[in-house]
Amino acid sequence: MIRFECDYTEGAHERILQRLLETNEEQTPGYGTDDHCAKARAYIKKACDSENADVHFLVGGTQTNTTVISSILRPHQGVIAAVSGHIGVHETGAIEATGHKVLTLPSEDGKIRGEQVKELYDAHWRDAAPEHCVQPGMVYISQPTENGTIYSRSELEVLSRVCRECDLPLFIDGARLGYGLVAEDNDVSLANIAQLCDVFYIGGTKIGAMMGEAIVILNDALKKDFRYMIKQKGGLLAKGRILGIQFETLFEDGLYFEISKHAIDMAMLLQKGLSEQGFSFLYHSTTNQQFPIISDRILQALSEKYTYSFWEKVDNTHTAVRFCTSWATKKENIEMLLQDIKALQ
Amino acid sequence: MIRFECDYTEGAHERILQRLLETNEEQTPGYGTDDHCAKARAYIKKACDSENADVHFLVGGTQTNTTVISSILRPHQGVIAAVSGHIGVHETGAIEATGHKVLTLPSEDGKIRGEQVKELYDAHWRDAAPEHCVQPGMVYISQPTENGTIYSRSELEVLSRVCRECDLPLFIDGARLGYGLVAEDNDVSLANIAQLCDVFYIGGTKIGAMMGEAIVILNDALKKDFRYMIKQKGGLLAKGRILGIQFETLFEDGLYFEISKHAIDMAMLLQKGLSEQGFSFLYHSTTNQQFPIISDRILQALSEKYTYSFWEKVDNTHTAVRFCTSWATKKENIEMLLQDIKALQ
Amino acid sequence: MIRFECDYTEGAHERILQRLLETNEEQTPGYGTDDHCAKARAYIKKACDSENADVHFLVGGTQTNTTVISSILRPHQGVIAAVSGHIGVHETGAIEATGHKVLTLPSEDGKIRGEQVKELYDAHWRDAAPEHCVQPGMVYISQPTENGTIYSRSELEVLSRVCRECDLPLFIDGARLGYGLVAEDNDVSLANIAQLCDVFYIGGTKIGAMMGEAIVILNDALKKDFRYMIKQKGGLLAKGRILGIQFETLFEDGLYFEISKHAIDMAMLLQKGLSEQGFSFLYHSTTNQQFPIISDRILQALSEKYTYSFWEKVDNTHTAVRFCTSWATKKENIEMLLQDIKALQ
Amino acid sequence: MIRFECDYTEGAHERILQRLLETNEEQTPGYGTDDHCAKARAYIKKACDSENADVHFLVGGTQTNTTVISSILRPHQGVIAAVSGHIGVHETGAIEATGHKVLTLPSEDGKIRGEQVKELYDAHWRDAAPEHCVQPGMVYISQPTENGTIYSRSELEVLSRVCRECDLPLFIDGARLGYGLVAEDNDVSLANIAQLCDVFYIGGTKIGAMMGEAIVILNDALKKDFRYMIKQKGGLLAKGRILGIQFETLFEDGLYFEISKHAIDMAMLLQKGLSEQGFSFLYHSTTNQQFPIISDRILQALSEKYTYSFWEKVDNTHTAVRFCTSWATKKENIEMLLQDIKALQ
Repeated sequence: MIRFECDYTEGAHERILQRLLETNEEQTPGYGTDDHCAKARAYIKKACDSENADVHFLVGGTQTNTTVISSILRPHQGVIAAVSGHIGVHETGAIEATGHKVLTLPSEDGKIRGEQVKELYDAHWRDAAPEHCVQPGMVYISQPTENGTIYSRSELEVLSRVCRECDLPLFIDGARLGYGLVAEDNDVSLANIAQLCDVFYIGGTKIGAMMGEAIVILNDALKKDFRYMIKQKGGLLAKGRILGIQFETLFEDGLYFEISKHAIDMAMLLQKGLSEQGFSFLYHSTTNQQFPIISDRILQALSEKYTYSFWEKVDNTHTAVRFCTSWATKKENIEMLLQDIKALQ
Repeated sequence: MIRFECDYTEGAHERILQRLLETNEEQTPGYGTDDHCAKARAYIKKACDSENADVHFLVGGTQTNTTVISSILRPHQGVIAAVSGHIGVHETGAIEATGHKVLTLPSEDGKIRGEQVKELYDAHWRDAAPEHCVQPGMVYISQPTENGTIYSRSELEVLSRVCRECDLPLFIDGARLGYGLVAEDNDVSLANIAQLCDVFYIGGTKIGAMMGEAIVILNDALKKDFRYMIKQKGGLLAKGRILGIQFETLFEDGLYFEISKHAIDMAMLLQKGLSEQGFSFLYHSTTNQQFPIISDRILQALSEKYTYSFWEKVDNTHTAVRFCTSWATKKENIEMLLQDIKALQ
Repeated sequence: MIRFECDYTEGAHERILQRLLETNEEQTPGYGTDDHCAKARAYIKKACDSENADVHFLVGGTQTNTTVISSILRPHQGVIAAVSGHIGVHETGAIEATGHKVLTLPSEDGKIRGEQVKELYDAHWRDAAPEHCVQPGMVYISQPTENGTIYSRSELEVLSRVCRECDLPLFIDGARLGYGLVAEDNDVSLANIAQLCDVFYIGGTKIGAMMGEAIVILNDALKKDFRYMIKQKGGLLAKGRILGIQFETLFEDGLYFEISKHAIDMAMLLQKGLSEQGFSFLYHSTTNQQFPIISDRILQALSEKYTYSFWEKVDNTHTAVRFCTSWATKKENIEMLLQDIKALQ
Repeated sequence: MIRFECDYTEGAHERILQRLLETNEEQTPGYGTDDHCAKARAYIKKACDSENADVHFLVGGTQTNTTVISSILRPHQGVIAAVSGHIGVHETGAIEATGHKVLTLPSEDGKIRGEQVKELYDAHWRDAAPEHCVQPGMVYISQPTENGTIYSRSELEVLSRVCRECDLPLFIDGARLGYGLVAEDNDVSLANIAQLCDVFYIGGTKIGAMMGEAIVILNDALKKDFRYMIKQKGGLLAKGRILGIQFETLFEDGLYFEISKHAIDMAMLLQKGLSEQGFSFLYHSTTNQQFPIISDRILQALSEKYTYSFWEKVDNTHTAVRFCTSWATKKENIEMLLQDIKALQ
């Protein structure tokens, strides 16, 4: 099987494994207080142009989202998200399990607009008895989104301004952040993100690491006691160095961006090839997730050799599916896939 | 610094890293559905002589305890544990964060007795209005305990019988299980454990792995929907293979036991050496944690070269501290430590 | 001000107050274990033709919904409800605060259909990885709904059959149940409800009592330890007799139905009067909530003398509002309201 | 049966029922926004000499404790309480159900001392890795305590000073506050309490009301959004006037204190009578709960005519039991009880 169903089908970038080997016998203190974590933090703060940020390393995305969100909200508050937001649909109610409602906004492309947030916020406070409703307490977005789309700088600026006017901390889920940062049409830098939101995370699991997400907290008010929250939610890795070493490797000389670029190159190769063959796409994605609409006949044939994710039925004979590329995607596999599809037409 | 403050100061056993390298480019499905996890599960079920067990891999101990306990209890129930139990004192209220009280029993040595459980259970149900109190819903113990002690087979049998009489699932935290299984005075096998409890976990983080705990569910009633719980609590690793490969390596030919034995040898070397120098110990531990009582003067001097954990003040000039050995402890470091202590007397 | 904004603007039916006075000096045990509660339970079980039901008295609706739902669901499960369901929109996230997601179904009239439940259920289990999503665990409906509509017997039968096929307990919020039971087009009896659902409650707060809701549990599997849940959620009233006496009075000789009928008569008087004046309604309600669409000019004028609830803007100059009648509504007030509206046309 | 097992065996003071009758047909808005609640708030603020306080009315004690505590704490924090504190032992884990641990301090008499709080606080922050432990976040005490004892003004002052030094809000559970305020040896006024703590409540259920507790929030930082918390926790009574009218009656002209005094007179009559007969007491209580130690033979005989609460076995043939007096206790019943006990000696 050649796998395209997600962006975590391989192990880790070889330089990471190499570094783990080299450092294996070092003795370090636990829980992220070691030198590798310190270096990784410094590299990340520099990349974000945010010397005062707090950086924490967690293992996975659901854990990260839950820890951040439950740390920020008071019990009667909820988190605003797109109806397609990962926290609302694919985390088994992890946010609700910490006591909070996900307040959803409609979205066609995975993004939400500043105006939508303002409208929901105003509607809440306009209510004669707002205390009967969940109070909007923060905003969650993903960059790139679940649909592969990315926010432009101006979109983020509007969202950020609204959030600050409404006193709603803005949290950006960057599980695939690298893939957004190097997309061809992207105009948002890591430093922009750090300026425009209150807290975000840089995903490692899907971009070169075995596992690991780096939370960057910009807003001072959200920094207090955050390590307690990590520990309580089960995310304080005993051998925190394992995460530190991985992010150290990814950020010491730009490896993170370099391998992200490879994934995008592969995604564009796929997109271009399919477009040329006449396929259309469910979303206009410029990142590593591509959502072509393909006939069920072809999909059936492909499934003997390739994996992909079912996304949604488009009509009786066609389905939108998801193909993911990653740092590890081999060019020959994309080319073979394109040829095989062509042959099936 | 030579580190003895805990049993997770190094990376992972070299065979694990080697295996990660060898398998790195394999493409596998996510979330623990890959072949490495399947093999690891098979090895573990065989080692436990429990073909019908369900085996799940999680990342760390707090996450594992929280996931298991919150999966079992109904909202009005609590978990019985020793007053020194890890869930009650060193997990930042993770159990309470899922809504449940830890019902503590007094313990000098880290163990609780079947009679204590029976007494607490009877007292609850004898109450004229038990519904005003948290209902005991399950029992949590550690093997070895936080104090380094181990339950004998007969102690476990009594506890197990009481639990079954009272319909209280018995959960064994095996964060250091290997170190207990190979202790000189141990008479409990993995198969015994699997027979006597309802669910337990085999710790990897402290015994050779970078991270990872293997949950073994024996009681059919506790198996249902467990993967939902793992996902919700943030423990369903995207690249689940990373855990599978580690446990595959540890259990395919007995490596887990072999390296556990090394840690015990080192602990006994330390214990014997300190005893010969006249030191006494806070607890009678036959496992990898040793709790000598040492004068503050010597400890002060040692702290320039060695790390250890503060445990408790014994009198004005003496302190009980904890030294941990592990699969990675070097014999020369134990010998040097003993010599340095001797020189300081 | 003449109040129509809700159905809890007065105290309690005079016979209830009278009974409280008569019994005031009796000494009774606490927490609902007294004879008045016992009698009230017996009357209710008889009215439901369900001798084996468990009946519990709680103080208010949100408390009741939270206690029932959190008692039934396991942590990874959610409750299915109409998008307009009270638990999802007007209880400040009380359900989420106990850890559970409300899984919403679209609804125009406040009702959900059996087919919708089946579809959501099937979609969940058809997913390749359902454990990444909240598992549907039960169904919540209101009778009457938030829109004043009522389920017919055949609609309830379909819903009930689907719920049983899918092993989803069906819970009916009967905050206004009396008003539904005596509606002119109603064909559902209390006994029907008791047969078709697993648990429901009979609202007292809105129908004659000072406060109080009577939970009726039919499904044996849901009865266990329910008093613990009531206590934990803060609903076990110390002087439980106060609730018992109220329901005893309401159910000993049909007072509950009699006063419900009065409210419906008043609502129909209002509906008929407004219809004759040419007004249309947002929903076709045959119960005590009426939702006429009225010009903003008239509403503005009315608001100096009457209260009503804003419901939604219909167009630039018209608004749908809610007028509620109740057991305590005076006929002369309805007549005056109709005259005043007529005069404003 | 003549009941002494608790202080909620009768209905409500007749003046309260009378007032409910008089006001019954008034139409008022819901949820505590009516004029009766407004007046009750004003009376209470005046009685507390705290014009800037926020006053909220809830139905019962567990609900009140849960709402206050969960509103104050962040997820990683716990509440410090005496080991005998009501929240830790008799509320079915309601606090844990909102995610928080109760951090217990030993206590013989139901009280905790400022020094104990300071010691627990310092121990937490002295820990090398405090984030592995629940952070102390507030302090809960009862006045009077579960043992019938009362804090002196100087004890409260010390506790208050420590709490402010440590930034730990101090919450006083006043379920029986009136009985403490009028105790003969009391030197603490309502105004003192309002000055020394951050939030407290005045119990109505046990002192003349059918039900109802008045929360008084003094600390501005704890006032924000409190009505959301009440609603979410199920405590926002639809007909809030029912609570308002009760507290209005109790506080408009000192009825609360007058009827509290009656209960104390009855308790002292009982205490004196038993002392004269040679009985000793488990605790030195000057309030409405008395804990005499009585032979099992006498208790057995008494139980045919009187109810009391079992407290604890003192030796093989004697038991400490609890007799409660209240605003409703009849003098002839105390006298008869004393005679009956005398006759049994």
